[in-house]
Amino acid sequence: MSDPKDAEAISQAIAARFGETLPVDPDTQGLETLLRMASRRVHRRYLDKPVEPDLLRLLLACALSSPSKSDLQQGDVVIVADPARRKAIFELIPSMPWMAEAPVFLVFCGDGQRLPRISEMRGKPFPNDHLDAFFNAVVDGAIVMASFIAAAEAVGLGCCPISVVRDNCDVLRETLSLPKRVVPIAGLTVGWPATPGRLSARLSIDARVHVDRYDTENLAAQLDEYDRRRNAAEPGLKPREPARWGEAPYYGWSEDKARQYANAQRTDFGAFVRSQGFKLD
Amino acid sequence: MSDPKDAEAISQAIAARFGETLPVDPDTQGLETLLRMASRRVHRRYLDKPVEPDLLRLLLACALSSPSKSDLQQGDVVIVADPARRKAIFELIPSMPWMAEAPVFLVFCGDGQRLPRISEMRGKPFPNDHLDAFFNAVVDGAIVMASFIAAAEAVGLGCCPISVVRDNCDVLRETLSLPKRVVPIAGLTVGWPATPGRLSARLSIDARVHVDRYDTENLAAQLDEYDRRRNAAEPGLKPREPARWGEAPYYGWSEDKARQYANAQRTDFGAFVRSQGFKLD
Repeated sequence: MSDPKDAEAISQAIAARFGETLPVDPDTQGLETLLRMASRRVHRRYLDKPVEPDLLRLLLACALSSPSKSDLQQGDVVIVADPARRKAIFELIPSMPWMAEAPVFLVFCGDGQRLPRISEMRGKPFPNDHLDAFFNAVVDGAIVMASFIAAAEAVGLGCCPISVVRDNCDVLRETLSLPKRVVPIAGLTVGWPATPGRLSARLSIDARVHVDRYDTENLAAQLDEYDRRRNAAEPGLKPREPARWGEAPYYGWSEDKARQYANAQRTDFGAFVRSQGFKLD
Repeated sequence: MSDPKDAEAISQAIAARFGETLPVDPDTQGLETLLRMASRRVHRRYLDKPVEPDLLRLLLACALSSPSKSDLQQGDVVIVADPARRKAIFELIPSMPWMAEAPVFLVFCGDGQRLPRISEMRGKPFPNDHLDAFFNAVVDGAIVMASFIAAAEAVGLGCCPISVVRDNCDVLRETLSLPKRVVPIAGLTVGWPATPGRLSARLSIDARVHVDRYDTENLAAQLDEYDRRRNAAEPGLKPREPARWGEAPYYGWSEDKARQYANAQRTDFGAFVRSQGFKLD
């Protein structure tokens, strides 16, 4: 299944994404999958074409086949199909009107309610009401979401994760009847891409992969390299809140993220999670 | 790229996994990827054959190309290569001696330190020291891990996530020099599979996919169906702690998980996460 063209295209995608030349052996199995992953892009514009229910179910089955912590299977999915429910969620996110055009909208959740209910039904104590239980459910849900995206992109669909749905967790809870000990992780729009999308540059591999020791010493140089490489590939990043922050010595990703998180965001999420019955001790 | 054989094999895998007959259109794009996902299995036994460094880096590049919350890129990876460090981690998990034979051992982390450091370096306040910040870093790390597994399996490697490394978080922190605001999510063994592995049955799709309303009403019937289907496929589940719990009316997955979580597990994880400098309010 050797394909020199796929190997070369992967090298090019990695160079564009990470600014690194990495040799790819054309005899590697599964290069088609790696090429799709290496060149993946977010999709927010969709064709006016439905996603067939059988296909959606197939993708969900693939996602639910992913690894699960201790085989607990705590990642669950809500398909938001009802127009009134979709509207209730979307109208709280006016900055993303394109969401309403997505043929499929899912909400991925961590399910912390099934396990303690099983303990109760089987007459066993459940002395595990703590941060680890919450953590495991969240990680499982995130794995299901990532696996769903991988499956969807394999068939040619495009996706966009929407974590901003957690800005209005109480509405999400009410709209989707989320029970106690279920926490929403993110929404996901899914559809047939209307545009090719754009490959986004990322921090270098060395900034995020550590060998034996978690190394944070070179952050300043890593940010500088990334800011400049990213601006070269995608010029025209618009400064955030210029009236508040004035001129930046250099406006790149790092300045942009520092400005974005200079505003408090989702400070009520902990209170919501606790009100859902999770203990975080 | 139509392949009726792949479509049929996917249907069979989904039937074995979920107990459901799902039609698969043989003209669907990417069926090879979906077949691999639908029939995926955990691998704990590996050939005595290395994973070439360039291949590992390629898989990491694919994993780091996955979606990231607000483009924050908070999922980081530690390659544990040093034999002394591997030994320090593995010897605390005597129940899994096979880990020592894995050619590659990774630890996936949520990185909550980069963003506040960027804020400081760019002279901005960071009023986001709360549960949501921790949650975002953890979800990003889990997405990177799931994406790494998808890439590794595409080239024919097998993996096993090891969340039990979090039983000894203080050792992990010391051994890998994990800085403040970095939390380990799970270890991962990676190698060339020595055995075909076994497809594990899962809860039905309907138990985990909800339409418009999160539905938990049918749990008893869902558990019964799953316990019996799973025991039929993999007979011989050995009862846990028989001296403590005696005979079960029916010993299946649900009884097994109820017994497993009747013991307190990782109750100190919250204290560890706080000692790492995360605020969970």
